[in-house]
Amino acid sequence: MTDLQAILDSIHAELLPRLGEGKVADYIPELAKVDPKQFGMAIATVDGNVRSVGDADIPFSIQSISKVFMLTLALGKVGEALWKRVGREPSGTAFNSIVQLEREEGIPRNPFVNAGAIAVSDVVLSGHAPREAIGELLRFVRYVADDESITIDDKVARSETQTGFRNIALANFMRAYNNLNHPVEHVLGVYFHQCALSMSCEQLARAGLYLAARGTNPITGHSVVSPKRARRINALMLTCGHYDGSGDFAYHVGLPGKSGVGGGILAVAPGIGSIAVWSPGLNKVGNSQLGAVALEMLAARTGWSVFGD
Amino acid sequence: MTDLQAILDSIHAELLPRLGEGKVADYIPELAKVDPKQFGMAIATVDGNVRSVGDADIPFSIQSISKVFMLTLALGKVGEALWKRVGREPSGTAFNSIVQLEREEGIPRNPFVNAGAIAVSDVVLSGHAPREAIGELLRFVRYVADDESITIDDKVARSETQTGFRNIALANFMRAYNNLNHPVEHVLGVYFHQCALSMSCEQLARAGLYLAARGTNPITGHSVVSPKRARRINALMLTCGHYDGSGDFAYHVGLPGKSGVGGGILAVAPGIGSIAVWSPGLNKVGNSQLGAVALEMLAARTGWSVFGD
Amino acid sequence: MTDLQAILDSIHAELLPRLGEGKVADYIPELAKVDPKQFGMAIATVDGNVRSVGDADIPFSIQSISKVFMLTLALGKVGEALWKRVGREPSGTAFNSIVQLEREEGIPRNPFVNAGAIAVSDVVLSGHAPREAIGELLRFVRYVADDESITIDDKVARSETQTGFRNIALANFMRAYNNLNHPVEHVLGVYFHQCALSMSCEQLARAGLYLAARGTNPITGHSVVSPKRARRINALMLTCGHYDGSGDFAYHVGLPGKSGVGGGILAVAPGIGSIAVWSPGLNKVGNSQLGAVALEMLAARTGWSVFGD
Amino acid sequence: MTDLQAILDSIHAELLPRLGEGKVADYIPELAKVDPKQFGMAIATVDGNVRSVGDADIPFSIQSISKVFMLTLALGKVGEALWKRVGREPSGTAFNSIVQLEREEGIPRNPFVNAGAIAVSDVVLSGHAPREAIGELLRFVRYVADDESITIDDKVARSETQTGFRNIALANFMRAYNNLNHPVEHVLGVYFHQCALSMSCEQLARAGLYLAARGTNPITGHSVVSPKRARRINALMLTCGHYDGSGDFAYHVGLPGKSGVGGGILAVAPGIGSIAVWSPGLNKVGNSQLGAVALEMLAARTGWSVFGD
Repeated sequence: MTDLQAILDSIHAELLPRLGEGKVADYIPELAKVDPKQFGMAIATVDGNVRSVGDADIPFSIQSISKVFMLTLALGKVGEALWKRVGREPSGTAFNSIVQLEREEGIPRNPFVNAGAIAVSDVVLSGHAPREAIGELLRFVRYVADDESITIDDKVARSETQTGFRNIALANFMRAYNNLNHPVEHVLGVYFHQCALSMSCEQLARAGLYLAARGTNPITGHSVVSPKRARRINALMLTCGHYDGSGDFAYHVGLPGKSGVGGGILAVAPGIGSIAVWSPGLNKVGNSQLGAVALEMLAARTGWSVFGD
Repeated sequence: MTDLQAILDSIHAELLPRLGEGKVADYIPELAKVDPKQFGMAIATVDGNVRSVGDADIPFSIQSISKVFMLTLALGKVGEALWKRVGREPSGTAFNSIVQLEREEGIPRNPFVNAGAIAVSDVVLSGHAPREAIGELLRFVRYVADDESITIDDKVARSETQTGFRNIALANFMRAYNNLNHPVEHVLGVYFHQCALSMSCEQLARAGLYLAARGTNPITGHSVVSPKRARRINALMLTCGHYDGSGDFAYHVGLPGKSGVGGGILAVAPGIGSIAVWSPGLNKVGNSQLGAVALEMLAARTGWSVFGD
Repeated sequence: MTDLQAILDSIHAELLPRLGEGKVADYIPELAKVDPKQFGMAIATVDGNVRSVGDADIPFSIQSISKVFMLTLALGKVGEALWKRVGREPSGTAFNSIVQLEREEGIPRNPFVNAGAIAVSDVVLSGHAPREAIGELLRFVRYVADDESITIDDKVARSETQTGFRNIALANFMRAYNNLNHPVEHVLGVYFHQCALSMSCEQLARAGLYLAARGTNPITGHSVVSPKRARRINALMLTCGHYDGSGDFAYHVGLPGKSGVGGGILAVAPGIGSIAVWSPGLNKVGNSQLGAVALEMLAARTGWSVFGD
Repeated sequence: MTDLQAILDSIHAELLPRLGEGKVADYIPELAKVDPKQFGMAIATVDGNVRSVGDADIPFSIQSISKVFMLTLALGKVGEALWKRVGREPSGTAFNSIVQLEREEGIPRNPFVNAGAIAVSDVVLSGHAPREAIGELLRFVRYVADDESITIDDKVARSETQTGFRNIALANFMRAYNNLNHPVEHVLGVYFHQCALSMSCEQLARAGLYLAARGTNPITGHSVVSPKRARRINALMLTCGHYDGSGDFAYHVGLPGKSGVGGGILAVAPGIGSIAVWSPGLNKVGNSQLGAVALEMLAARTGWSVFGD
């Protein structure tokens, strides 16, 4: 079998001179403070092993990667009825675009653009107070990662609440089209807190393992979703997980993945394992620049691309 | 091993009562004449076997499926330089939309929307007369399908030439942005003839086998593209192959695929085989309605989804 | 000289059988309660006479007509520097569209679409508390109308505050582009209250008279703006005053005008007089249906069109 | 009465140092050759006098100003039925934009954007050969200008035919929506020739005089259109005559006007006269930069703005 640790080490070594490439997200003040030269990577395989390299044990703001966990929760609550509220197609526009919402009357294109995740937050709320919904998400993430130490970074959540004018616009716009059932502030409370989840690459790789393993976490034995639902979430990650860079990511990496503006990416190799990478500098469509490069190296060296070896 | 023939037979039997669903493309007069109750399906596996059911030996107009073969040819000619002329992202709009072209200054979103395929045709022309480029495509398709009997339906080509006003608009629009190097009539000559390729499901399944088999046709032993390029073409098919229904197809079927308004779909199960299905009735985004259903059944019964079994 | 009273009477008589045409605005609950069969019209001429017919003394919600008064105030505060914050071109889209804002990075097309009026409200605020800015507007309108009895309908203001999700979206979107200097709630507080101004046709005709009389109200002798500025505000009313129906209004009526979803229209015949009409039923672009018809009749019978007699 | 000749002379003198400002249209090769320092201006008043200054007797390519004459012809042929084929609203986008056509299904926004003028050309064709329609236009323009020496510049027409890819795209796009009844080449033949009309400022001012004089040319006594139709054409010129700079032109000049990329502008002062100005350098929305400045000076010094003196 391939020596995964050696591959991780070689990727890390090759990328060392490039650390700091890209541009750290600065529209969320709290994120702008992050040291851009950090880099971590972890792989959890379906046999339960976790290998890692670099800053893989340092928690970072997972931001939009949380949309995968919220989608899982929402599908658990309402099943396929979710698709009345949000589409399943790539957007063809930026992650925070509002244009599409006007054209398609308040129905976001997919659960992984901001508007879609806000609609998903509304579904997860389902009559509860924001605090309870946030608590539910935190419990869920701790459960799938099998790690009670995971927390939400309140400073980041506050920072986003104070500056998230585009997200407030998106939420109110959907509310105008009756595609939010709860007060806008409640929905955004949930949304801003999910983005502020703080996790390390190792935690994240373990948390995503159910998607690689037919819906069940092989480490804990917990069944999270059915095999069919795991496949479907993977499909959405592949077509929509990197905003308007999803096609490019599929072309170069060939794995379902979800990025966050904190510089993290969670990728899934179905039947094999779950990979988390973190490098804060972003490319021009808002995805981790070196994170994508690292995953391209990994896929090339392991033959894990879903599109052939 | 799974009994593929039995699976094909069961899919055919289950779909029999639904034949005729969807709406045959009527904007190309010649296509509107096709009997909507036809249905064929064929699977070519990497071991060289071809199994089929229904009208799998009747040639039909493959239309946009030809874009896969043209893309292969263009990449062979200019390699990655192709991506200066066309993007790699899902479009978020209809297959014949011109809006995106204005926003992105004449660079089509991907090679599988009409505008993108017209740009690819311009690349394949590369200084030749249209007749030669069409000849080259025909030779290529016969070569990958290992079948010299494949032809282009001149009546369909003529029908499209006379009514393809939107495609003429797209081509002239790109020409205005200097993204076509040859006369518009030449480029469209190539484009309309590629769409008029006439192939049966069996021929198509064999022709697509190189994409499932690391770039080499296992039946003939012909090396068509490198393994890396095969993966990349598959990735583009998965993210962009079904126009604004690509996300939905990935969600339900989970295989790279390319549809045509003639009612055909070519799908690829990497490492396993190539599948062609044909049912003329289209759904509202222009993809074969029962073709997609048949492939969803197949993926469910075989576990071939690239997103997990 | 033309007998204006006779013309008003004839218009009223001819429209009587049609009263109730169009559709009362229902997205603001308080407006939905208005009796759709009401109709009033008043003309204030530069000689100081006011003639009227029908329900011309009943106050109604002037809504977007207030944008003319706010624009006048903002130009008074910052002069031509206003045009760094908002454009002067017709929008080509609906009054509450957000698409243009994304394309043009937070700069609204003109001061008479909602986004533009919100930017104007931000300018009028200029460091004050919302209450003071609202007070300033109310004093201004009373001054130009020479009528201290004019008020703001708090129920309407509250109704809009509770349901104005699209306007909240527009304001936050502009805030994201740094095109609002004050807290969104303050700006919207001003915006929602200006829309809730309650005036009769007679009051409105008098209030608009300065625009017909080289910037000076001939009744009171108050100089409001320079002749040049009066011309310019009239120009903006003509090109942008009826949202995406401005071209149509110019074609049929030929007078600068500003409509409101309360069913009112203020029109200006430069050098001659100011006309206010009120009929609650709206046409499909959101302008008073019979109000426009009445003004077309008036222009035809008086030869007041600015485009020739 | 104002000494118009003195005003023209003073405008010319003040602009002399600025001649050459703006950017000559270069997308039509034949236009790119024009000397940018030329400047002419002519005023025809309803009393039959024509005054002029500078290069007012040198013919130039009137380009889109011809759309006014074609609109007059089309209204003469089909009357108000024209508005089923083209709208009457400002576009909110560039003169050659295709985006709106897709959104509004092949119906151009107004007769003065390129797509609208192409639809108008189709109406004027009305079953004739292109040569006849072009002949009809030429006869009409000679008739309203009372000048048999006016011609069409074949070199310009040919230059546009060879490079007018966007216009070819627009025409085919409308054809796809069944909004052209004649072959695309015929319609464009008419369109490209109308743009190539060659007229001097003096000829143009006389030709436009019917619009200032209730539809009748006061010099020849020829009745061209009804007073109502003259008003309506003026209204369209004011709201749509300067593409996406129409609001700005109304704001600064306050007269109905139509610009062309040859650097000409035809403006109308209803009841007073018709003005033509020519200066080849264009501003960023494609209108004559100094031409607009000259007209603003004229309006300021004469008090001719339709929005008040």
